Amino acid sequence: MSSGEIDFWVSIGSTYSYLSVMRLGDVAKKTGLTFRWRPFSVRSIMLEQNNIPFRGKPVKMAYMWRDVGRRAEMYGLSPRLPAVYPLPEFDLANRIAVLGAREGWCAEFVRAFYRRWFEEGRGGAEADLSDALSDIGVSPATAVASARGGAIGQAYEEVTMEAKLLGVFGSPTFVVGREVFWGDDRLDDAIAWLKAGHLRWAAE
Amino acid sequence: MSSGEIDFWVSIGSTYSYLSVMRLGDVAKKTGLTFRWRPFSVRSIMLEQNNIPFRGKPVKMAYMWRDVGRRAEMYGLSPRLPAVYPLPEFDLANRIAVLGAREGWCAEFVRAFYRRWFEEGRGGAEADLSDALSDIGVSPATAVASARGGAIGQAYEEVTMEAKLLGVFGSPTFVVGREVFWGDDRLDDAIAWLKAGHLRWAAE
Repeated sequence: MSSGEIDFWVSIGSTYSYLSVMRLGDVAKKTGLTFRWRPFSVRSIMLEQNNIPFRGKPVKMAYMWRDVGRRAEMYGLSPRLPAVYPLPEFDLANRIAVLGAREGWCAEFVRAFYRRWFEEGRGGAEADLSDALSDIGVSPATAVASARGGAIGQAYEEVTMEAKLLGVFGSPTFVVGREVFWGDDRLDDAIAWLKAGHLRWAAE
Repeated sequence: MSSGEIDFWVSIGSTYSYLSVMRLGDVAKKTGLTFRWRPFSVRSIMLEQNNIPFRGKPVKMAYMWRDVGRRAEMYGLSPRLPAVYPLPEFDLANRIAVLGAREGWCAEFVRAFYRRWFEEGRGGAEADLSDALSDIGVSPATAVASARGGAIGQAYEEVTMEAKLLGVFGSPTFVVGREVFWGDDRLDDAIAWLKAGHLRWAAE
Protein backbone atom coordinates (compact mmCIF):
# COMPACT_ATOMS: atom_id res chain seq x y z
CA MET A 1 0.00 0.00 0.00
CA SER A 2 2.93 2.35 -0.58
CA SER A 3 1.04 3.55 -3.64
CA GLY A 4 -0.70 6.27 -1.65
CA GLU A 5 -4.15 5.01 -2.57
CA ILE A 6 -7.20 4.51 -0.39
CA ASP A 7 -10.36 2.72 -1.50
CA PHE A 8 -13.42 4.81 -0.74
CA TRP A 9 -16.44 2.54 -0.46
CA VAL A 10 -19.54 4.67 -0.85
CA SER A 11 -23.22 3.90 -1.24
CA ILE A 12 -25.66 6.59 -2.30
CA GLY A 13 -28.46 6.69 0.25
CA SER A 14 -26.15 6.81 3.27
CA THR A 15 -26.45 10.05 5.21
CA TYR A 16 -22.98 10.29 6.78
CA SER A 17 -21.46 9.65 3.34
CA TYR A 18 -22.48 13.21 2.44
CA LEU A 19 -19.64 14.49 4.61
CA SER A 20 -16.98 12.34 2.93
CA VAL A 21 -18.31 12.80 -0.58
CA MET A 22 -18.18 16.58 -0.30
CA ARG A 23 -14.76 16.91 1.35
CA LEU A 24 -12.77 14.12 -0.26
CA GLY A 25 -11.58 16.24 -3.17
CA ASP A 26 -10.02 18.77 -0.79
CA VAL A 27 -8.48 16.03 1.33
CA ALA A 28 -6.92 14.45 -1.76
CA LYS A 29 -5.40 17.77 -2.76
CA LYS A 30 -4.03 18.51 0.71
CA THR A 31 -2.59 15.06 1.31
CA GLY A 32 -1.53 14.15 -2.23
CA LEU A 33 -3.35 10.84 -1.83
CA THR A 34 -5.58 9.18 -4.40
CA PHE A 35 -9.02 7.89 -3.46
CA ARG A 36 -10.51 5.15 -5.58
CA TRP A 37 -14.30 5.51 -5.49
CA ARG A 38 -16.02 2.13 -5.08
CA PRO A 39 -19.81 2.51 -5.28
CA PHE A 40 -21.71 -0.52 -3.93
CA SER A 41 -24.99 -1.56 -2.30
CA VAL A 42 -24.60 -1.06 1.41
CA ARG A 43 -28.30 -1.74 1.77
CA SER A 44 -28.12 -5.34 0.62
CA ILE A 45 -25.24 -5.99 3.05
CA MET A 46 -27.06 -4.28 5.92
CA LEU A 47 -30.28 -6.18 5.27
CA GLU A 48 -28.38 -9.46 5.17
CA GLN A 49 -26.60 -8.60 8.42
CA ASN A 50 -29.77 -7.35 10.16
CA ASN A 51 -28.11 -3.97 10.59
CA ILE A 52 -30.80 -1.27 10.63
CA PRO A 53 -29.29 2.10 11.55
CA PHE A 54 -32.26 4.48 11.90
CA ARG A 55 -35.61 2.96 10.89
CA GLY A 56 -37.82 2.75 13.98
CA LYS A 57 -35.18 4.62 16.02
CA PRO A 58 -36.37 8.26 16.15
CA VAL A 59 -33.98 9.36 18.90
CA LYS A 60 -30.93 8.01 17.09
CA MET A 61 -32.22 9.44 13.79
CA ALA A 62 -32.68 12.92 15.29
CA TYR A 63 -29.18 12.75 16.75
CA MET A 64 -27.75 11.69 13.38
CA TRP A 65 -29.16 14.77 11.62
CA ARG A 66 -27.84 17.04 14.36
CA ASP A 67 -24.42 15.38 14.26
CA VAL A 68 -24.24 15.54 10.45
CA GLY A 69 -25.32 19.19 10.59
CA ARG A 70 -22.68 20.19 13.15
CA ARG A 71 -19.93 18.37 11.26
CA ALA A 72 -21.06 19.71 7.88
CA GLU A 73 -20.74 23.23 9.26
CA MET A 74 -17.25 22.37 10.51
CA TYR A 75 -16.31 21.40 6.95
CA GLY A 76 -17.77 24.60 5.52
CA LEU A 77 -20.81 22.87 4.01
CA SER A 78 -24.38 24.20 4.11
CA PRO A 79 -26.89 21.35 3.96
CA ARG A 80 -30.64 21.71 4.46
CA LEU A 81 -31.46 19.10 7.07
CA PRO A 82 -33.12 16.75 7.47
CA ALA A 83 -32.70 15.58 3.88
CA VAL A 84 -35.18 13.16 2.30
CA TYR A 85 -34.65 9.79 3.95
CA PRO A 86 -34.73 6.99 3.07
CA LEU A 87 -33.89 7.68 -0.53
CA PRO A 88 -36.32 6.04 -3.00
CA GLU A 89 -34.10 5.33 -6.03
CA PHE A 90 -30.89 4.34 -4.24
CA ASP A 91 -30.29 1.22 -6.35
CA LEU A 92 -30.51 3.08 -9.65
CA ALA A 93 -28.35 5.87 -8.20
CA ASN A 94 -25.63 3.40 -7.21
CA ARG A 95 -25.84 1.58 -10.55
CA ILE A 96 -25.24 4.93 -12.26
CA ALA A 97 -22.26 5.45 -9.95
CA VAL A 98 -20.92 2.00 -10.93
CA LEU A 99 -21.21 3.01 -14.58
CA GLY A 100 -19.45 6.27 -13.70
CA ALA A 101 -16.59 4.34 -12.10
CA ARG A 102 -16.12 2.53 -15.43
CA GLU A 103 -16.30 5.72 -17.45
CA GLY A 104 -14.34 8.03 -15.17
CA TRP A 105 -17.06 10.32 -13.77
CA CYS A 106 -18.11 8.49 -10.59
CA ALA A 107 -16.86 11.08 -8.08
CA GLU A 108 -18.34 13.99 -10.04
CA PHE A 109 -21.71 12.28 -10.30
CA VAL A 110 -21.92 11.24 -6.65
CA ARG A 111 -20.95 14.74 -5.56
CA ALA A 112 -23.51 16.35 -7.88
CA PHE A 113 -26.18 13.98 -6.63
CA TYR A 114 -25.43 14.57 -2.94
CA ARG A 115 -25.34 18.32 -3.53
CA ARG A 116 -28.88 18.20 -4.92
CA TRP A 117 -30.07 15.76 -2.28
CA PHE A 118 -28.56 17.44 0.80
CA GLU A 119 -28.25 21.07 -0.25
CA GLU A 120 -31.25 21.59 -2.55
CA GLY A 121 -33.82 19.40 -0.83
CA ARG A 122 -34.24 17.06 -3.81
CA GLY A 123 -35.76 13.68 -3.17
CA GLY A 124 -33.69 11.32 -5.25
CA ALA A 125 -36.36 10.50 -7.83
CA GLU A 126 -35.23 9.49 -11.32
CA ALA A 127 -35.53 13.12 -12.49
CA ASP A 128 -33.04 14.12 -9.78
CA LEU A 129 -30.61 11.48 -11.01
CA SER A 130 -30.96 12.82 -14.54
CA ASP A 131 -30.36 16.38 -13.35
CA ALA A 132 -27.22 15.33 -11.49
CA LEU A 133 -25.97 13.66 -14.69
CA SER A 134 -26.72 16.81 -16.66
CA ASP A 135 -24.81 18.82 -14.04
CA ILE A 136 -21.64 16.95 -14.96
CA GLY A 137 -22.23 16.84 -18.70
CA VAL A 138 -23.23 13.19 -19.03
CA SER A 139 -26.25 12.29 -21.17
CA PRO A 140 -28.99 11.18 -18.73
CA ALA A 141 -30.89 9.01 -21.23
CA THR A 142 -27.81 7.02 -22.24
CA ALA A 143 -26.44 6.68 -18.71
CA VAL A 144 -29.75 5.65 -17.14
CA ALA A 145 -30.32 3.04 -19.88
CA SER A 146 -26.82 1.61 -19.39
CA ALA A 147 -27.19 1.65 -15.61
CA ARG A 148 -30.41 -0.35 -15.88
CA GLY A 149 -28.75 -2.94 -18.13
CA GLY A 150 -27.53 -6.40 -17.22
CA ALA A 151 -23.81 -5.65 -17.44
CA ILE A 152 -23.97 -2.90 -14.85
CA GLY A 153 -26.36 -4.95 -12.75
CA GLN A 154 -23.79 -7.73 -12.64
CA ALA A 155 -20.95 -5.32 -11.89
CA TYR A 156 -23.02 -3.83 -9.05
CA GLU A 157 -23.53 -7.28 -7.53
CA GLU A 158 -19.87 -8.19 -7.94
CA VAL A 159 -18.55 -5.02 -6.33
CA THR A 160 -21.01 -5.47 -3.45
CA MET A 161 -19.73 -9.02 -2.96
CA GLU A 162 -16.16 -7.67 -2.95
CA ALA A 163 -17.15 -5.17 -0.25
CA LYS A 164 -18.72 -7.93 1.83
CA LEU A 165 -15.65 -10.14 1.54
CA LEU A 166 -13.50 -7.26 2.78
CA GLY A 167 -15.74 -6.88 5.84
CA VAL A 168 -17.30 -3.61 4.68
CA PHE A 169 -20.72 -3.26 6.34
CA GLY A 170 -21.44 0.48 6.22
CA SER A 171 -20.90 3.60 4.14
CA PRO A 172 -18.65 5.49 3.99
CA THR A 173 -15.79 3.04 4.51
CA PHE A 174 -12.12 3.57 3.78
CA VAL A 175 -9.95 0.54 3.07
CA VAL A 176 -6.15 0.48 3.17
CA GLY A 177 -4.89 -2.97 2.16
CA ARG A 178 -7.02 -5.28 4.34
CA GLU A 179 -7.60 -2.65 7.02
CA VAL A 180 -11.18 -1.35 7.22
CA PHE A 181 -12.13 2.09 8.58
CA TRP A 182 -15.85 2.78 8.85
CA GLY A 183 -17.28 6.27 8.97
CA ASP A 184 -16.40 9.77 7.83
CA ASP A 185 -14.79 10.21 11.25
CA ARG A 186 -12.28 7.45 10.49
CA LEU A 187 -10.77 9.13 7.41
CA ASP A 188 -7.87 10.51 9.45
CA ASP A 189 -7.26 7.03 10.86
CA ALA A 190 -7.14 5.55 7.34
CA ILE A 191 -4.70 8.22 6.17
CA ALA A 192 -2.45 7.71 9.21
CA TRP A 193 -2.56 3.92 8.65
CA LEU A 194 -1.52 4.31 5.03
CA LYS A 195 1.34 6.64 5.92
CA ALA A 196 2.66 5.01 9.09
CA GLY A 197 0.90 1.68 9.70
CA HIS A 198 -0.68 2.98 12.91
CA LEU A 199 -2.99 5.76 14.01
CA ARG A 200 -1.90 9.21 15.01
CA TRP A 201 -3.46 11.06 17.91
CA ALA A 202 -3.98 14.75 17.28
CA ALA A 203 -3.58 15.83 20.92
CA GLU A 204 -6.11 18.21 22.49
CA MET B 1 -21.87 26.36 30.13
CA SER B 2 -19.10 28.84 30.67
CA SER B 3 -18.28 26.79 33.76
CA GLY B 4 -15.91 24.56 31.79
CA GLU B 5 -17.83 21.42 32.70
CA ILE B 6 -18.87 18.53 30.49
CA ASP B 7 -21.25 15.77 31.58
CA PHE B 8 -19.76 12.38 30.82
CA TRP B 9 -22.58 9.83 30.53
CA VAL B 10 -21.07 6.40 30.91
CA SER B 11 -22.53 2.94 31.28
CA ILE B 12 -20.36 0.03 32.34
CA GLY B 13 -20.80 -2.74 29.79
CA SER B 14 -20.22 -0.48 26.79
CA THR B 15 -17.09 -1.40 24.84
CA TYR B 16 -16.18 1.96 23.29
CA SER B 17 -16.53 3.58 26.73
CA TYR B 18 -13.25 1.88 27.65
CA LEU B 19 -11.43 4.44 25.48
CA SER B 20 -13.04 7.45 27.15
CA VAL B 21 -12.85 6.05 30.67
CA MET B 22 -9.11 5.46 30.39
CA ARG B 23 -8.12 8.76 28.75
CA LEU B 24 -10.50 11.24 30.37
CA GLY B 25 -8.20 11.99 33.30
CA ASP B 26 -5.40 13.05 30.94
CA VAL B 27 -7.79 15.08 28.80
CA ALA B 28 -9.08 16.91 31.90
CA LYS B 29 -5.52 17.75 32.93
CA LYS B 30 -4.51 18.97 29.46
CA THR B 31 -7.62 21.06 28.85
CA GLY B 32 -8.33 22.26 32.39
CA LEU B 33 -11.93 21.09 31.96
CA THR B 34 -13.99 19.21 34.52
CA PHE B 35 -15.91 16.09 33.56
CA ARG B 36 -18.90 15.16 35.67
CA TRP B 37 -19.26 11.37 35.57
CA ARG B 38 -22.90 10.33 35.15
CA PRO B 39 -23.26 6.53 35.32
CA PHE B 40 -26.60 5.26 33.97
CA SER B 41 -28.24 2.25 32.33
CA VAL B 42 -27.65 2.53 28.62
CA ARG B 43 -29.04 -0.95 28.26
CA SER B 44 -32.56 -0.08 29.40
CA ILE B 45 -32.62 2.87 26.96
CA MET B 46 -31.28 0.75 24.10
CA LEU B 47 -33.77 -2.05 24.74
CA GLU B 48 -36.63 0.46 24.82
CA GLN B 49 -35.43 2.04 21.57
CA ASN B 50 -34.80 -1.30 19.83
CA ASN B 51 -31.15 -0.32 19.42
CA ILE B 52 -29.01 -3.48 19.37
CA PRO B 53 -25.42 -2.66 18.47
CA PHE B 54 -23.65 -6.00 18.13
CA ARG B 55 -25.80 -9.01 19.12
CA GLY B 56 -26.40 -11.12 16.02
CA LYS B 57 -24.05 -8.88 13.99
CA PRO B 58 -20.72 -10.74 13.86
CA VAL B 59 -19.16 -8.60 11.12
CA LYS B 60 -19.91 -5.35 12.95
CA MET B 61 -18.76 -6.90 16.22
CA ALA B 62 -15.43 -8.02 14.74
CA TYR B 63 -14.92 -4.54 13.30
CA MET B 64 -15.69 -2.96 16.67
CA TRP B 65 -12.95 -4.94 18.43
CA ARG B 66 -10.46 -4.05 15.71
CA ASP B 67 -11.45 -0.38 15.82
CA VAL B 68 -11.26 -0.26 19.63
CA GLY B 69 -7.88 -2.01 19.49
CA ARG B 70 -6.38 0.39 16.94
CA ARG B 71 -7.65 3.43 18.84
CA ALA B 72 -6.56 2.05 22.22
CA GLU B 73 -3.04 1.70 20.87
CA MET B 74 -3.22 5.30 19.63
CA TYR B 75 -4.01 6.39 23.18
CA GLY B 76 -1.16 4.34 24.60
CA LEU B 77 -3.43 1.67 26.09
CA SER B 78 -2.81 -2.08 25.99
CA PRO B 79 -6.10 -3.99 26.13
CA ARG B 80 -6.45 -7.75 25.63
CA LEU B 81 -9.15 -8.03 23.00
CA PRO B 82 -11.78 -9.21 22.59
CA ALA B 83 -12.87 -8.59 26.18
CA VAL B 84 -15.72 -10.56 27.75
CA TYR B 85 -18.93 -9.39 26.08
CA PRO B 86 -21.69 -8.93 26.96
CA LEU B 87 -20.85 -8.25 30.57
CA PRO B 88 -22.95 -10.32 33.01
CA GLU B 89 -23.25 -8.02 36.05
CA PHE B 90 -23.59 -4.67 34.28
CA ASP B 91 -26.54 -3.49 36.38
CA LEU B 92 -24.77 -4.07 39.68
CA ALA B 93 -21.61 -2.49 38.25
CA ASN B 94 -23.50 0.65 37.25
CA ARG B 95 -25.33 0.79 40.59
CA ILE B 96 -21.96 0.73 42.32
CA ALA B 97 -20.86 3.56 40.01
CA VAL B 98 -24.00 5.53 40.99
CA LEU B 99 -23.08 5.04 44.65
CA GLY B 100 -19.55 6.15 43.78
CA ALA B 101 -20.89 9.33 42.17
CA ARG B 102 -22.58 10.14 45.50
CA GLU B 103 -19.50 9.35 47.53
CA GLY B 104 -16.84 10.83 45.25
CA TRP B 105 -15.10 7.73 43.87
CA CYS B 106 -17.09 7.05 40.66
CA ALA B 107 -14.30 7.80 38.18
CA GLU B 108 -11.74 5.79 40.14
CA PHE B 109 -14.07 2.79 40.39
CA VAL B 110 -15.11 2.79 36.74
CA ARG B 111 -11.48 3.09 35.66
CA ALA B 112 -10.40 0.27 37.99
CA PHE B 113 -13.24 -1.91 36.71
CA TYR B 114 -12.50 -1.27 33.03
CA ARG B 115 -8.80 -1.91 33.62
CA ARG B 116 -9.61 -5.35 35.01
CA TRP B 117 -12.22 -6.05 32.34
CA PHE B 118 -10.27 -4.89 29.28
CA GLU B 119 -6.65 -5.29 30.35
CA GLU B 120 -6.73 -8.34 32.65
CA GLY B 121 -9.37 -10.43 30.93
CA ARG B 122 -11.76 -10.37 33.89
CA GLY B 123 -15.37 -11.22 33.22
CA GLY B 124 -17.28 -8.72 35.32
CA ALA B 125 -18.59 -11.23 37.87
CA GLU B 126 -19.40 -9.95 41.34
CA ALA B 127 -15.90 -10.92 42.52
CA ASP B 128 -14.42 -8.66 39.84
CA LEU B 129 -16.56 -5.77 41.07
CA SER B 130 -15.32 -6.40 44.60
CA ASP B 131 -11.72 -6.48 43.43
CA ALA B 132 -12.14 -3.18 41.57
CA LEU B 133 -13.55 -1.65 44.76
CA SER B 134 -10.62 -3.01 46.75
CA ASP B 135 -8.26 -1.52 44.14
CA ILE B 136 -9.49 1.96 45.05
CA GLY B 137 -9.71 1.41 48.81
CA VAL B 138 -13.50 1.11 49.12
CA SER B 139 -14.97 -1.69 51.24
CA PRO B 140 -16.58 -4.15 48.81
CA ALA B 141 -19.08 -5.60 51.29
CA THR B 142 -20.44 -2.20 52.30
CA ALA B 143 -20.50 -0.79 48.77
CA VAL B 144 -22.15 -3.84 47.19
CA ALA B 145 -24.83 -3.90 49.91
CA SER B 146 -25.55 -0.18 49.42
CA ALA B 147 -25.56 -0.55 45.65
CA ARG B 148 -28.15 -3.34 45.92
CA GLY B 149 -30.38 -1.22 48.16
CA GLY B 150 -33.55 0.66 47.22
CA ALA B 151 -32.09 4.16 47.48
CA ILE B 152 -29.41 3.48 44.88
CA GLY B 153 -31.89 1.53 42.77
CA GLN B 154 -34.11 4.60 42.65
CA ALA B 155 -31.19 6.92 41.93
CA TYR B 156 -30.13 4.60 39.08
CA GLU B 157 -33.60 4.76 37.56
CA GLU B 158 -33.79 8.53 37.95
CA VAL B 159 -30.43 9.23 36.37
CA THR B 160 -31.32 6.91 33.49
CA MET B 161 -34.57 8.85 32.99
CA GLU B 162 -32.56 12.08 32.99
CA ALA B 163 -30.28 10.65 30.29
CA LYS B 164 -33.27 9.63 28.20
CA LEU B 165 -34.87 13.08 28.48
CA LEU B 166 -31.61 14.64 27.27
CA GLY B 167 -31.67 12.37 24.20
CA VAL B 168 -28.77 10.20 25.36
CA PHE B 169 -29.06 6.78 23.69
CA GLY B 170 -25.52 5.38 23.84
CA SER B 171 -22.36 5.28 25.92
CA PRO B 172 -20.07 7.14 26.09
CA THR B 173 -21.94 10.41 25.56
CA PHE B 174 -20.71 13.91 26.31
CA VAL B 175 -23.28 16.61 27.02
CA VAL B 176 -22.59 20.36 26.92
CA GLY B 177 -25.73 22.25 27.94
CA ARG B 178 -28.41 20.60 25.76
CA GLU B 179 -25.95 19.53 23.08
CA VAL B 180 -25.36 15.78 22.86
CA PHE B 181 -22.16 14.19 21.49
CA TRP B 182 -22.18 10.40 21.21
CA GLY B 183 -19.02 8.35 21.10
CA ASP B 184 -15.43 8.53 22.24
CA ASP B 185 -14.67 10.03 18.84
CA ARG B 186 -16.91 13.03 19.60
CA LEU B 187 -14.98 14.17 22.68
CA ASP B 188 -13.06 16.77 20.66
CA ASP B 189 -16.36 18.04 19.26
CA ALA B 190 -17.80 18.43 22.78
CA ILE B 191 -14.72 20.30 23.96
CA ALA B 192 -14.78 22.63 20.93
CA TRP B 193 -18.50 23.24 21.47
CA LEU B 194 -17.95 24.15 25.11
CA LYS B 195 -15.11 26.53 24.24
CA ALA B 196 -16.44 28.15 21.05
CA GLY B 197 -20.04 27.07 20.43
CA HIS B 198 -19.07 25.29 17.22
CA LEU B 199 -16.76 22.48 16.12
CA ARG B 200 -13.17 22.89 15.14
CA TRP B 201 -11.64 20.98 12.24
CA ALA B 202 -8.12 19.77 12.89
CA ALA B 203 -6.93 19.92 9.26
CA GLU B 204 -5.06 17.01 7.70
